[in-house]
Amino acid sequence: MRIVVLAGGIGGARFLRGLMSAAPDADITVIGNTGDDIHLFGLKVCPDLDTVMYTLGGGIHEEQGWGRADETFTVKEELAAYGVGPEWFGLGDRDFATHIVRTQMIGAGYPLSAVTEALCARWQPGVRLLPMTDDRVETHVLIDDPDAPGGVHDPDAPGGAGRKAVHFQEYWVRLRASVPAHAVVPVGADQAKPAPGVLEAIADADVVLFPPSNPVVSVGTILAVPGVREAIADAGIPVVGLSPIVGDAPVRGMADKVLAAVGVESTAAAVAKHYGSGLLDGWLVDTVDAGAVDEVEAAGIRCRAIPLMMTDLEATAAMAAEALKLAEEVRG
Amino acid sequence: MRIVVLAGGIGGARFLRGLMSAAPDADITVIGNTGDDIHLFGLKVCPDLDTVMYTLGGGIHEEQGWGRADETFTVKEELAAYGVGPEWFGLGDRDFATHIVRTQMIGAGYPLSAVTEALCARWQPGVRLLPMTDDRVETHVLIDDPDAPGGVHDPDAPGGAGRKAVHFQEYWVRLRASVPAHAVVPVGADQAKPAPGVLEAIADADVVLFPPSNPVVSVGTILAVPGVREAIADAGIPVVGLSPIVGDAPVRGMADKVLAAVGVESTAAAVAKHYGSGLLDGWLVDTVDAGAVDEVEAAGIRCRAIPLMMTDLEATAAMAAEALKLAEEVRG
Repeated sequence: MRIVVLAGGIGGARFLRGLMSAAPDADITVIGNTGDDIHLFGLKVCPDLDTVMYTLGGGIHEEQGWGRADETFTVKEELAAYGVGPEWFGLGDRDFATHIVRTQMIGAGYPLSAVTEALCARWQPGVRLLPMTDDRVETHVLIDDPDAPGGVHDPDAPGGAGRKAVHFQEYWVRLRASVPAHAVVPVGADQAKPAPGVLEAIADADVVLFPPSNPVVSVGTILAVPGVREAIADAGIPVVGLSPIVGDAPVRGMADKVLAAVGVESTAAAVAKHYGSGLLDGWLVDTVDAGAVDEVEAAGIRCRAIPLMMTDLEATAAMAAEALKLAEEVRG
Repeated sequence: MRIVVLAGGIGGARFLRGLMSAAPDADITVIGNTGDDIHLFGLKVCPDLDTVMYTLGGGIHEEQGWGRADETFTVKEELAAYGVGPEWFGLGDRDFATHIVRTQMIGAGYPLSAVTEALCARWQPGVRLLPMTDDRVETHVLIDDPDAPGGVHDPDAPGGAGRKAVHFQEYWVRLRASVPAHAVVPVGADQAKPAPGVLEAIADADVVLFPPSNPVVSVGTILAVPGVREAIADAGIPVVGLSPIVGDAPVRGMADKVLAAVGVESTAAAVAKHYGSGLLDGWLVDTVDAGAVDEVEAAGIRCRAIPLMMTDLEATAAMAAEALKLAEEVRG
C-alpha cells in the first residue's frame, strides 16, 4: 500500500511512527511542511523536516519532541558571547551540523529536496521524505504592533495599521503565541511549485493521511502550494485526517491561536469542515468529541470517534490503523 | 610609539604577546595573513586572524597554539556522520561559532576587515587587527601528482605536467608538508587591494616588525598584496625582522619546505637576504647563528644575534625589546 502523509513537526512525526508500526509494509511518502523554515545565523533551518527525520531516524530528543538527543549548546553560547542572536531559538551543536550541511549543499546549488534526500541517507527514516516545495515559503503571522505606523492597534482600522508581520518561529517560539494572530500568511506560497516527486507521489498513492498536525501552519501550508490541494482532491483516493483538537483544545501546541486567525473554531468538527468535504473523505475525532460525529458527517465527511491521544507507540499505531480502516470504509 | 606588525599565525601571535609586554604603551596595528583562509563546510575560516585574536584575547588553546581552549568537537563528529569532510581540519564547536558569525556577516555584505573588527569587539586583543586584504587570496602549493596529465613527475617536464596545486591548508595540515613543494602561489594576490587602514597604518608607523613567522606563506603573502611591500619600503622608517630559522631549521612548523619552493636556503642569513635590504633594515638571528651576522650585514642589513626561542612571555618580550632597540639603532 502506498500512503502519502502531509506532516508538520512533532505531531506528524509521532503519528508517522505509529503508522509505520501499524502498516510495516506500506510504502510511505511524507510531504513535509517547510513554511516554518527559517534562516538563523546565515544557516537554513528546516524544523519540521528535521523533526520527522530525527524522530524516524532515532536521533530525536524524545521528551522534548524536537532537536537532538544528548544535545549540547556550545556553539549557541559562543554566538551569544559575540552578541549574535536570536537566543530564543534553541539550536544545539548536533543540530547545527545538520544546518551546516544543508546550507553548504544549497549554496552549492542543490535544491532542498536533494539536500533532504542526502541528509536522510544518514538517518534512514524508513519513509521517503519530501519537502512540500524547493522554493522559499515563509509563514508570517500578523500581530499587533503599537510602534507600527498607525499607532495603537485599532481592530477597525483598515489594512495593517498598528500591526506587523513576524516570522512564524518568532510568533511561536519567541512569543509563544501569547498575542492574538490576526492573519497567517504563507509568504511565497503562491509562487511556489511542488517539489519533485510530490505530485507524483499523490497520483500514485492509495490513501492520503493528515496526521493530527496543525491544520493552519502545518497541513494548511502544504495545501497552500499551488497544485497540492488539487492533486489530493482529484486523486480519487481516500483522504483521511485525525483531529488535532480534542475537547475543544489542541492536544499539544497552540493550534487554537492560529485557527482563530483564519476564523475557525477550536473544535474537532470545525477543523474537519475547514478542510471540507471537497478534500477530506474521513475524519477521526477523539471519544470525548463523539458528539461531533454527526455534525462532521452532515458536512459530507465520514467520521468516527476513537481515542486520539498519542501517549505511546501502541496507542499511536491504533490511531493509524483506525485511519487506514476508515480509508477502506470510504473507498467502499 | 606606533608599531605595525606583519603576522602569520602561531609565531606571530606569540611574538605579539611579547611585544605588548615589552611595549605596553605602544599603539600596535597587526596586518594579518589571510592567504591560508579556507572555505570549509561552506564557512569562511581565517586561521591566522583567529590565532592572533584568540591568543591576544585569552581564548587560545595554549599548548596547541591554535584553536580554542576547552574545546569540544560535537559539530565535527556530526558532520563526519553525514559523510561531510574534510576530517583533517580540526574545527571545534567554539571555533565554529566564530566562522558562523564571520560567514553570516560576509553574506550580509560586510568586508572581512569589518567582520574582523566585529569579532575583535568581543576578544579585545589590545591591538588593531587588520586582514591584509578584503579580497580573496588563497595560497596554493604545487606538488607532484602521478595521476595528473603528464603522468609520473618528471622534474624536467615543462609546465605543470604531473603536478597539481592544492590549498595551502591541504599541504600543511593534511599532508603535513611531507611531499616536496615546487611552488607557492598566492592565488588572487595580484588583483587584491590592501584592506582599509593597511597602507594608512604603515604610513603612520614609527617602526615595522616582521615576527618570526613563515617568510613565504605568512609574511611573504602579506607582502604579495600590491602596494604593501612598496609602502613599507618607502615609509622611511625602520623595518626589523626576527629570524624564524634557528640553527638551519624552523623554530616551529615546516618553513624549510616552502622556503625550498622559492629557492631560499633554510638559514637565518638566507631569509634576511630573501627579504632584502631594500625592505629590511634590521635582522635578529639566534645566538647559535651568530656566525651569520657578518653575512647579513654584508648584504646591507643591520644584524644582531640574541636568544630567539619564545619559550615564555619573558623571553618573548626580551626578543621584542631587542627588535625595538635595533630599530632605534637603525633610525640612528
